[in-house]
Amino acid sequence: MIRLLFITKNRHKVIEAQISIEQVGLGKFINLELLEIPKLEIQSDDLKEIAIFAARNVYKRLEERKAIVVEDAGLFIESLNGFPGPYSNYVYRTIGIKGILKLLKGIDNRRAEFVSVIVVIHPEFGEMVFEGKAQGYIAYEAKGDKGFGFDPIFIPKGHSKTFAEMNIEEKCRYSHRGAAFRALARWFASKLKDLQPLDKVSRDRE
Amino acid sequence: MIRLLFITKNRHKVIEAQISIEQVGLGKFINLELLEIPKLEIQSDDLKEIAIFAARNVYKRLEERKAIVVEDAGLFIESLNGFPGPYSNYVYRTIGIKGILKLLKGIDNRRAEFVSVIVVIHPEFGEMVFEGKAQGYIAYEAKGDKGFGFDPIFIPKGHSKTFAEMNIEEKCRYSHRGAAFRALARWFASKLKDLQPLDKVSRDRE
Repeated sequence: MIRLLFITKNRHKVIEAQISIEQVGLGKFINLELLEIPKLEIQSDDLKEIAIFAARNVYKRLEERKAIVVEDAGLFIESLNGFPGPYSNYVYRTIGIKGILKLLKGIDNRRAEFVSVIVVIHPEFGEMVFEGKAQGYIAYEAKGDKGFGFDPIFIPKGHSKTFAEMNIEEKCRYSHRGAAFRALARWFASKLKDLQPLDKVSRDRE
Repeated sequence: MIRLLFITKNRHKVIEAQISIEQVGLGKFINLELLEIPKLEIQSDDLKEIAIFAARNVYKRLEERKAIVVEDAGLFIESLNGFPGPYSNYVYRTIGIKGILKLLKGIDNRRAEFVSVIVVIHPEFGEMVFEGKAQGYIAYEAKGDKGFGFDPIFIPKGHSKTFAEMNIEEKCRYSHRGAAFRALARWFASKLKDLQPLDKVSRDRE
């Protein structure tokens, strides 16, 4: 069993991450626990750079060598040159969903991408980076009240509902965060298989 | 004579700062020199926190103990809850002036504030923070081609021209950066007066 401290203030993210891991049958392998401590986020156009810096800084400050995970995510809108990107949280808190819809008024290209980058630092396995993307479109109006942030205006490709109209399991199936955490889960599962006899792994999985 | 290394990539800022210092007759006291080295900017809603963190980080990395100055500035628009604030540079590079004007379409409250925070770390005098503000309005259309960033849409209170329609001396007289660097210059001038005989100071001023 791998225990990871998820450094975030956002409980939604931890729940989504855990559900995503369970969706690939690896919920018994990996356990996430929320740890709310200050996280140093740098300004950068690159989510990876932000997440790696934050993870290393947190790890350095830990009193005990424990495995941690840090996520940085953003909504990148094509016709706005990637805005709001790494600053999605700030933009959500200031101009919000209304501001994004106003900026896109009269613009036909609604293509957008949600990106999640997660960085794990593990005392034994070292540092790893996983990325998940969800391609889609910005809706013409906000719909749904589930999820958080810009979920009410993001429709994943091939669907008609926004993330905020989906229940959490459905959102995780298509979301950037879901993809990133499933990649993380699979990586750890393959590592554990190498380390343990296979029958032990099968038992744990039940 | 105080020599300060101004850590920035933006030559406009150094020229504006030097002119502002000269406007209070202290150009011979303080000399600014551009130093283009990587600057670590954190994400924060507070310019002061960003500038202090960046200044300490640069100072720590210097091989010689030299006096440095770091500036962080932002445009805070009242009806947009302070947006774009500390992320003005990123917002300028993505949605730009057009985006800001679109967000304010149909909004009568055009009140905005340009804020400049400068942090000096001096081997002898320690760490100091100076702040300058320029209150004003967001124009209904971009005007002028001088200055940089959001200058073409910012009209300081009591004026009819945008910063980009003013020559550099006029802009500095009303600008946030001008106010901050004049405060810095006056502080150093008073310190030097304490340290030197007054006639020496008067001579230097001529």
